[in-house]
Amino acid sequence: MERKVIFEADRDALRLLADGGAVLGAGGGGNPYVGRLMAEQAISEGTKVPVVDIDSFGDDELILPIAMMGAPAVMIEKFPSGKEIPRLVAMMEQLTGKKVAAILCIEAGGLNSVIPFAAAAAAGLPIIDGDAMRRAFPELQMVTFTLGGISATPMAMFDDKGNGATFDTVSNKWTERLARALTIEMGGSAMVGLYATTAGRMRDYVIRGSLSMAKRIGELMHEHGANAARVLAETYDGAVLFQGRVRDVARRNEGGFTRGTVTIEGLGDFRRREVVLSFQNEFIGAEEGGRMLATTPDLITLLDANTGQPVTTEMVKYGLSLNVLGLPCAPIWRTPAAIELVGPRYFGLDVDYRPL
Amino acid sequence: MERKVIFEADRDALRLLADGGAVLGAGGGGNPYVGRLMAEQAISEGTKVPVVDIDSFGDDELILPIAMMGAPAVMIEKFPSGKEIPRLVAMMEQLTGKKVAAILCIEAGGLNSVIPFAAAAAAGLPIIDGDAMRRAFPELQMVTFTLGGISATPMAMFDDKGNGATFDTVSNKWTERLARALTIEMGGSAMVGLYATTAGRMRDYVIRGSLSMAKRIGELMHEHGANAARVLAETYDGAVLFQGRVRDVARRNEGGFTRGTVTIEGLGDFRRREVVLSFQNEFIGAEEGGRMLATTPDLITLLDANTGQPVTTEMVKYGLSLNVLGLPCAPIWRTPAAIELVGPRYFGLDVDYRPL
Repeated sequence: MERKVIFEADRDALRLLADGGAVLGAGGGGNPYVGRLMAEQAISEGTKVPVVDIDSFGDDELILPIAMMGAPAVMIEKFPSGKEIPRLVAMMEQLTGKKVAAILCIEAGGLNSVIPFAAAAAAGLPIIDGDAMRRAFPELQMVTFTLGGISATPMAMFDDKGNGATFDTVSNKWTERLARALTIEMGGSAMVGLYATTAGRMRDYVIRGSLSMAKRIGELMHEHGANAARVLAETYDGAVLFQGRVRDVARRNEGGFTRGTVTIEGLGDFRRREVVLSFQNEFIGAEEGGRMLATTPDLITLLDANTGQPVTTEMVKYGLSLNVLGLPCAPIWRTPAAIELVGPRYFGLDVDYRPL
Repeated sequence: MERKVIFEADRDALRLLADGGAVLGAGGGGNPYVGRLMAEQAISEGTKVPVVDIDSFGDDELILPIAMMGAPAVMIEKFPSGKEIPRLVAMMEQLTGKKVAAILCIEAGGLNSVIPFAAAAAAGLPIIDGDAMRRAFPELQMVTFTLGGISATPMAMFDDKGNGATFDTVSNKWTERLARALTIEMGGSAMVGLYATTAGRMRDYVIRGSLSMAKRIGELMHEHGANAARVLAETYDGAVLFQGRVRDVARRNEGGFTRGTVTIEGLGDFRRREVVLSFQNEFIGAEEGGRMLATTPDLITLLDANTGQPVTTEMVKYGLSLNVLGLPCAPIWRTPAAIELVGPRYFGLDVDYRPL
């Protein structure tokens, strides 16, 4: 079958995609500077990974979603070596009884927008222009595939020391629990392959165009610098929810996640106002005086007011001048089943979801 | 090949074997009363499991060691159902590419002397008269197979909810770490299959006759009641190291293990003396005034002075009148490599091993 190539990702393209992925990270997914370094590690000079349309694949062809699981801070030290990727691909082929036809990003937000390119390059496979989130989420059952009844297992994971494990679980939530425990024991991060299924089964649940979108966001950031927040809001039907300076950050580690709040005092048009952002790795809500400006699954992202660069929940600190950008989530996240899976109440916010 | 049957294990035989297994548990391995209940659950009335000689198996035949991993207190609630055993056997056959010819107990001490009979009965397979410890040890790399360079992986584990996992690790110590983390997340216990290899590869490292020995110990306990400690010491070249009453028990949970000490005041011939036993699930040392009476890998077991019944580190309490029985470990544990793996220094005791 002729594959429809959307674009060829070389290192330059991948750097742009990493920048856009940091915006789609919604505060989580790892340090954007690390993302750019990973783009260099992921594909060698001169290599190009074809980013292709999922409709180029026959119903029976196997698509392998790949990600790095764990703490983003650990990932750069443990960036997948040449050994892990062939073992991961081979193990998934053994578990599914099929040859892998293409790689898929599970989340186009954060470092996981870049990491699967390393797998695609190493395995000589194309990568699908799409993902299962079009943002980052903290738990591995939080994918469109769960809404489609697609099982996370068989799943395989490998660490940088050469240890491997596979799972076959009764639910995607159990996959999250077991794989999370093992990731911690493996030293904080691991390469994972999961939700592997045929293009036919997956087609309706892949969010199309996520990688093109990440790359386009990266391009707009470079063109518009400090104005990026406004331009991105206009381009993607979002809004600059707030502008101001960080007054307080409360951050704690709980159960393998970073949880807390960021308080921002208004500047300019937002003077004398204050917004409180809450997060679990990613931002889950932006509240002003009891009123929610935005909640998960819509994206809340911070951009540095001076540089236009994304600021994650791990980087944000006292005194930074920021734009709070709200972007609408992919439409599939606004269905009732999706709100149950990734809406504000799942994360402990006692409010209903109201689309941005 | 004609299998040489050492004995046929029916429920009565299995109850005796459970009692002897509790003595070989060396203070760990779970409550002996639970062991007797498990004997009832393991094989139905009238069923007999042939206990056979490993030399009845050809060099290429696959032997599957089985155990329950985790906290003994949890095991009775999660006793393997009809579902887990067939999946475990099937998964190990898939991972090794061979049919299982027989089941092996990994440890003939504690509840794991009984649990593999449930697997053998359910799968209609014989069980080998032997194990890889001839006692209980707390960590899964602590088997004779590690001395023989036999890998713990491929390993499979299943919980009572239906979740399964497999491992392929770089060392048996890593298998322990990863499987321990998953066992905790699975609710405290799981059925495991590991160290699966051919009879030819395993033959020199199986400790032969462990199950016969456990059953014989059970018989001697029933015949001799309160005198069991003395009779067992005479029969198996051991010694009654101490007799007295428990003055103090210090017990704490650390990293999935129960650690602590038991202090016993002498009675009778041992009047005006005091012994301190230290344990990590199993007893690791018996010290009197700075002198070690016995250490791991030799067995230190407590028997109730009035009933002759074994008393585990989880059951022992203030005021109990006890015999401290020392039994020599299987000879393979006295080699330098074995002492490094399971000797006193591994468990943090600053003494050299001196055979009982």
